[in-house]
Amino acid sequence: MDGDTKTMTFLQELQDEPATLDDILISCRATLKYAIKTAHPRYFNQLSTGLDMVGLAADWLTSTANTNMFTYEVAPVFVLLEYVTLKKMREIIGWSDGRGDGIFSPGGAISNMYAMLLARFKMFPEVKEKGMSSVPRLAAFTSEHSHFSIKKGAAALGIGTESVICIKADESGKLIPADLERRILEAKQKGFVPFFVSATAGTTVYGAFDPLIAISDICKKYNVWMHVDGAWGGSLLMSRRHRWKLDGVERANSVTWNPHKMMSVPLQCSALLVREEGLMQNCNQMHACYLFQQDKHYDLSYDTGDKALQCGRHVDIFKLWLMWRAKGTIGFEAQIDKCLELSEYLYNKIKDREGYEMVFDGKPQHTNVCFWYLPPGIRYMEDKEERKKHLHKVAPVIKARMMEYGTTMVSYQPQGDKVNFFRMVISNPAATFEDIDFLIEEIERLGQDL
Amino acid sequence: MDGDTKTMTFLQELQDEPATLDDILISCRATLKYAIKTAHPRYFNQLSTGLDMVGLAADWLTSTANTNMFTYEVAPVFVLLEYVTLKKMREIIGWSDGRGDGIFSPGGAISNMYAMLLARFKMFPEVKEKGMSSVPRLAAFTSEHSHFSIKKGAAALGIGTESVICIKADESGKLIPADLERRILEAKQKGFVPFFVSATAGTTVYGAFDPLIAISDICKKYNVWMHVDGAWGGSLLMSRRHRWKLDGVERANSVTWNPHKMMSVPLQCSALLVREEGLMQNCNQMHACYLFQQDKHYDLSYDTGDKALQCGRHVDIFKLWLMWRAKGTIGFEAQIDKCLELSEYLYNKIKDREGYEMVFDGKPQHTNVCFWYLPPGIRYMEDKEERKKHLHKVAPVIKARMMEYGTTMVSYQPQGDKVNFFRMVISNPAATFEDIDFLIEEIERLGQDL
Repeated sequence: MDGDTKTMTFLQELQDEPATLDDILISCRATLKYAIKTAHPRYFNQLSTGLDMVGLAADWLTSTANTNMFTYEVAPVFVLLEYVTLKKMREIIGWSDGRGDGIFSPGGAISNMYAMLLARFKMFPEVKEKGMSSVPRLAAFTSEHSHFSIKKGAAALGIGTESVICIKADESGKLIPADLERRILEAKQKGFVPFFVSATAGTTVYGAFDPLIAISDICKKYNVWMHVDGAWGGSLLMSRRHRWKLDGVERANSVTWNPHKMMSVPLQCSALLVREEGLMQNCNQMHACYLFQQDKHYDLSYDTGDKALQCGRHVDIFKLWLMWRAKGTIGFEAQIDKCLELSEYLYNKIKDREGYEMVFDGKPQHTNVCFWYLPPGIRYMEDKEERKKHLHKVAPVIKARMMEYGTTMVSYQPQGDKVNFFRMVISNPAATFEDIDFLIEEIERLGQDL
Repeated sequence: MDGDTKTMTFLQELQDEPATLDDILISCRATLKYAIKTAHPRYFNQLSTGLDMVGLAADWLTSTANTNMFTYEVAPVFVLLEYVTLKKMREIIGWSDGRGDGIFSPGGAISNMYAMLLARFKMFPEVKEKGMSSVPRLAAFTSEHSHFSIKKGAAALGIGTESVICIKADESGKLIPADLERRILEAKQKGFVPFFVSATAGTTVYGAFDPLIAISDICKKYNVWMHVDGAWGGSLLMSRRHRWKLDGVERANSVTWNPHKMMSVPLQCSALLVREEGLMQNCNQMHACYLFQQDKHYDLSYDTGDKALQCGRHVDIFKLWLMWRAKGTIGFEAQIDKCLELSEYLYNKIKDREGYEMVFDGKPQHTNVCFWYLPPGIRYMEDKEERKKHLHKVAPVIKARMMEYGTTMVSYQPQGDKVNFFRMVISNPAATFEDIDFLIEEIERLGQDL
């Protein structure tokens, strides 16, 4: 069998008998060959891109250590590194002396679910033993532009998606505080108990930052837990130039912040930060005596596993910690600032360029730049409905061609009544001005005949 | 600063300025130096031990690929490998043609929580939108020896820990089916709706296998979802000699099976297998249009992300798939059989040895061997209460000394009215008969003066 045929059959069924080492290497090479090159500076498809060499080395060391975060006993160094890093992140949020709590969880959706779980427990601690039947009907609030994990969490936690009330966003994707207050009052009138507001710092599509100060005033007024989903935008706290976009975050009860997005830490690395100490432990602990023995010979407060929903928990901390050591806070700041600069460059290049239309006005708030590309054929169509129909099909075709040529990758989607548009995001510090120029030319090259 | 002083301060606060590359290497060396050597053949402390070289290489490749399981578009190879591997696992469970569904999740606790979520949705699909207020009070059933994640799951899902009814286990830790039926009837009489039974295949402490056939008969009779938590014991399905212990597993609605435990796949690698196709998707999907676009240029059934609770999902499949290729099914079988043989060897050596008492009679069912070591000083104590009080303190002291000497590590815990005892488990195929001999001698050396 020659190499190519072998490559094509590497996906064969799993066998009883072992393969040869040669076959294993062929499988590895084929896996890398057909993998998407997420580290490539022209891969703009997701919020997590790039490949930091120190982060990669740290992940390799983590794999080699092959241990578990549940007890200090089996992960003494990693537990301590998690402690110092979470504390540092809380300081950056602005909680005094970095006090509070937190955990690294398997992704932003789970971090957000943790926040909702804590909010419910804080208001109704009996829910842990008695379940939702002991609790009035709850209502959670989040912007119509927020991440779908808020609804997923509500479904899983037995709250129900209908109890997640979507608040209107303005043209640029920011939650409208007046609508939040109106909907809270409305829910109360209907007998619901508002318990959770999830503000978004950096929405997935527009990159919008909800007005946190105004939202926190409303949360305080109605005694509702304020969560900030900063999975995408939280990292801007590292930048002196951009952190004002999260002003008010220090008033939140909990914050999701994913270093695996804008800080280019290898996947996965997501933190939930919580202002109140001890709440996570009370909410989730089950005192399994075969894991959290009370007569160990060390300080049991280092056994942080019982505050997690998980039992075993993957070590996600080392790559973030080591990258932080290697870059310093100023290194992260520089790479974040650079990505935002690239976005602004893209925005400036296309906002008045023929064939482009911006999805909303104004400079990018995060690195998201949302736009339509209009091929010459539909640029001057007079029938607006016809034009819209055609335009809807443009981005999927260009994207498919990008993938076939293997030159670049960028995401698209519809939103509300807006037909398919491109959403550019930049989180890879390896990207350059030339890559942005290339993207524009490539879209035009691949789309001009449509 | 000399090397030692530097090592001791490597845990310093995170700084604004970057550290030198030398400092980074010192941090890496220190992290490995103070790490617990989980791959050492005398590390018996957890259910996940060892370090498979092919698995490690696969994890390194996974880190390098740095992608996300949510869409085929960004993880084409890994999505396909997950598909073929889950199918193979379902075939091994015994579901016809490997039909069904499944997912790799961040650990057994989350896999068990998925199962409970699916069981609830299957019986009351309206819970997704309307929450638990649309549902009668539910009751879940599991053995008193089961894993604490069943209660954690119930707390999180808004079912409440009081709705988890603990069924009596016999002396060897197996759930007693008659007690299960009695408690189901009792719950029904009290107006609860039984919706979920979690049988355990390989309990955490005793390694007991619940009688699945008898349990499945009861589940069928009362129309209750049958879950098998085989996080620890599921891998015995790979062994022709031991798979009878899971007879009846093919009747389950869902099965948790963690290859990161008895198959020595690097952490994390946990699968939930589900008999009914499509249920996970219906239960969890939220149709986020910015991720799961409906006008992509490939078969959308490969976009498996919307059936997960998570949005981004770590690639856990490649290490299992590559190890399977490298060993074949018979390779896994051989290493599992060997670990069970080592356990039986340990059991035979200590069951009649002076100074040892077994916690329960009979040969080990899994690799768990539970025993007390009685130092000479308390071996002949007549006052039973006094003896118990002393004995309770023995295991913690011996364990602390093991860790101080750095020679071996084994877990201990109390259970019910039984004072602290050792729980040996063997999941590292690198362990040998000599390591078992060493353990016995080491316990005696470290404990003889107590």
